[in-house]
Amino acid sequence: MSDVHVSRVRVRYAETDQMGVLHHAGWVVYWEIGRTDLMRARGLSYRKLEDELGLMLPVVDFGARMTGSAAYDDEVEIRTRVGEIGRVKVRFEYEGYLDGRRLATGYSVHGVVNRDWKITRLPAEVTALLAKGMD
Amino acid sequence: MSDVHVSRVRVRYAETDQMGVLHHAGWVVYWEIGRTDLMRARGLSYRKLEDELGLMLPVVDFGARMTGSAAYDDEVEIRTRVGEIGRVKVRFEYEGYLDGRRLATGYSVHGVVNRDWKITRLPAEVTALLAKGMD
Amino acid sequence: MSDVHVSRVRVRYAETDQMGVLHHAGWVVYWEIGRTDLMRARGLSYRKLEDELGLMLPVVDFGARMTGSAAYDDEVEIRTRVGEIGRVKVRFEYEGYLDGRRLATGYSVHGVVNRDWKITRLPAEVTALLAKGMD
Amino acid sequence: MSDVHVSRVRVRYAETDQMGVLHHAGWVVYWEIGRTDLMRARGLSYRKLEDELGLMLPVVDFGARMTGSAAYDDEVEIRTRVGEIGRVKVRFEYEGYLDGRRLATGYSVHGVVNRDWKITRLPAEVTALLAKGMD
Repeated sequence: MSDVHVSRVRVRYAETDQMGVLHHAGWVVYWEIGRTDLMRARGLSYRKLEDELGLMLPVVDFGARMTGSAAYDDEVEIRTRVGEIGRVKVRFEYEGYLDGRRLATGYSVHGVVNRDWKITRLPAEVTALLAKGMD
Repeated sequence: MSDVHVSRVRVRYAETDQMGVLHHAGWVVYWEIGRTDLMRARGLSYRKLEDELGLMLPVVDFGARMTGSAAYDDEVEIRTRVGEIGRVKVRFEYEGYLDGRRLATGYSVHGVVNRDWKITRLPAEVTALLAKGMD
Repeated sequence: MSDVHVSRVRVRYAETDQMGVLHHAGWVVYWEIGRTDLMRARGLSYRKLEDELGLMLPVVDFGARMTGSAAYDDEVEIRTRVGEIGRVKVRFEYEGYLDGRRLATGYSVHGVVNRDWKITRLPAEVTALLAKGMD
Repeated sequence: MSDVHVSRVRVRYAETDQMGVLHHAGWVVYWEIGRTDLMRARGLSYRKLEDELGLMLPVVDFGARMTGSAAYDDEVEIRTRVGEIGRVKVRFEYEGYLDGRRLATGYSVHGVVNRDWKITRLPAEVTALLAKGMD
């Protein structure tokens, strides 16, 4: 596992549902924020990856497991790590905390494709940045 | 005003918020469904407009006014009309009904641009289809 | 596994992202539509479950795996089954098809709680309806 | 007009659409963040308003007008003001800027209701905080 990156996300009113808590699909969006922040923090803007390298990392598998609920206005801490890096695949792992209590865990697996959706290898320098802190 | 087109949309759980009703931004998405359905019904698929004619109709102005709330699982009726068609602009108007009672009204104004976001004129055949029923 | 229920969902413009396809979190919303439709088809409106029986089925675990992408305006077929029913837990399983080709599979696991978020048992008549078609 | 409050919101990938920009409904969610932040900055948490005072501020009218597009990963500046305060109504006004260039303007009008959706008057101390900076 790579070094962890910590993001803070405040639950928006629009993200709640009539159960009075964050709708579960919201976690998937928070995972996305988590990995985008991790990449930016390592000098690897996902925006530049798309714009300059012509690479996209579409999600091919994802999930979340919740042991608690986040409420409107809660400031949730998202902890993101790179779990595995293959030649054409990357796996991120996530945890969502509130006040030191873990509410959710999750993961996403991404393919690597070019603008024509052809499977592509990650450039070595991208792999190196993602792998930071891995054994 | 053009002929009206009627769409039916069922309020999704994910679209509710903790007030227990459809979040107001949901109406904007319903307006989008309304105009897409109107266009399709007139043989003018918005998808084809983008894919085949290379035209996009970005929203430049929109609004909604609510006199009632839609709840989860309600099947809302969206009534859509073309309000005005200019050379480089189209205006749609919307009403949202539930069981014969009007809950919301709204509008959207769209520019017409090509793939490079250059302002473009609507082809005459598109204008004709949109104008159907106008005086 | 219970009998399958088939829903049809048209991909909304608002649900696409800049990759030009349905954003992956959209599948989670489609799973929600799938199970709501399955329940309604069996005479077990989820809305009534909340309103009349005071029960909620919060999602505690969910996931999706994609082998293809859905595009704007595609009419996707969602096939939903009840996978398992425990005393305080229900598991739904999902597939998303387009033109006979499977694009995605997924699942959701739900707890059963009352209005105070206390774990509760599913009433026998609810279990029976959900289990329809199970061996 | 009251004093302006400035919020910063980074455009999420999930908020883009296939035009490659922030979907217009996203502005409505950004307005919501803007007024929530303004209220919090004035010691008037909207969460507490609902939880402790039992008041809700449902949107009854809203709109947005765009002169430019926000892209994925842009950090947009939302400037929020209280436009008018009546006895049972509040109007907020918004502007969205990117790098000093205005992309969008908008407004929202809110009713004031209690938990039973009965129209209610805003407490004087709430009005005073909202009015801060008004002539």
